[in-house]
Amino acid sequence: MNNRYWFVGGEQGSWRVTRQAAITGAPLASISRLNVVQAEAAPSVAGTRWALQGLTSNVRYATKDEVATLRSKQESPGRAGSTMAALIPIKKSARWWDLAQDERRAIFEETSHHTAIGLDYLPAIARRLHHSRDLGEPFDFLTWFEFAPQHSEAFDQLLVRLRETPEWSFVEREVEVRLLRGEIVVP
Amino acid sequence: MNNRYWFVGGEQGSWRVTRQAAITGAPLASISRLNVVQAEAAPSVAGTRWALQGLTSNVRYATKDEVATLRSKQESPGRAGSTMAALIPIKKSARWWDLAQDERRAIFEETSHHTAIGLDYLPAIARRLHHSRDLGEPFDFLTWFEFAPQHSEAFDQLLVRLRETPEWSFVEREVEVRLLRGEIVVP
Repeated sequence: MNNRYWFVGGEQGSWRVTRQAAITGAPLASISRLNVVQAEAAPSVAGTRWALQGLTSNVRYATKDEVATLRSKQESPGRAGSTMAALIPIKKSARWWDLAQDERRAIFEETSHHTAIGLDYLPAIARRLHHSRDLGEPFDFLTWFEFAPQHSEAFDQLLVRLRETPEWSFVEREVEVRLLRGEIVVP
Repeated sequence: MNNRYWFVGGEQGSWRVTRQAAITGAPLASISRLNVVQAEAAPSVAGTRWALQGLTSNVRYATKDEVATLRSKQESPGRAGSTMAALIPIKKSARWWDLAQDERRAIFEETSHHTAIGLDYLPAIARRLHHSRDLGEPFDFLTWFEFAPQHSEAFDQLLVRLRETPEWSFVEREVEVRLLRGEIVVP
């Protein structure tokens, strides 16, 4: 299995950037297009401004019931109608990572309802989580979202709800890259 | 931070192999010496038979109380008197990794008492855990143990107790490499 994904920002790629914002902390260099590549080694793309990598992995917080509910409702990225996407790289503080498993779980779900909030937007918002922290990357997580244009407002609402949670007080850097699939059609 | 460690088996290295055994599943190619190297890239060592890599990371199961107890009792590898060591690579089954977090925690600690058993041997047995699964390695974990010769029997007992637990029914491959530090002194 290859579980490594690269997000290569620059002037090429099948995703066109419609908005790029630093939500917390330092921004990423501005790009016009993004390539998403599943590969072991960093892809070589002319004009690359940055390349972020992450690994898909097992669940870290979800309980048996939560996993069952997630699996019954969620759909994978790659649906034909999902022409909109977002890449949200996040770095959490050292204070978060020093916490024990039960402390992180309590903040993640019992007080912040992270999984429960996400469930409200399934199956409309497809999501894939990539772990980066152990690789020494600048971010701890890269989350990739895909959805149809009619769910764009719902996605905005999802972000607002997550960013209001106690869990987000541990986020020390967050960037949001919004994307549209395919070429610009000039009539 | 560089949190990546390489365990390079062959004919060179500061650790001499005293015993190498396949406990469950396929063995590793036989080696006479082992190098332990903290580095981003695979070290180039003549005569290498195998090189295993893993990353240190945050705790995955321990609760706040368990972490506090561990931190108050454990010592790090590298003590002058720790002339004996063991490298134990382990691979768990797909059935384990498909379990939710609460199911894995329940097996790991509530029924198998993994942390509790380890605590019985602190600070005598120093331990460092390396995560390998997300890197596509042949093993999921590489655990490194160090201790003084007078604790060798206690270490054997620790292994027996862990291998009797329900958690170990999920181990589908396990190799044990026992080591002695330094040169062979020929009188």
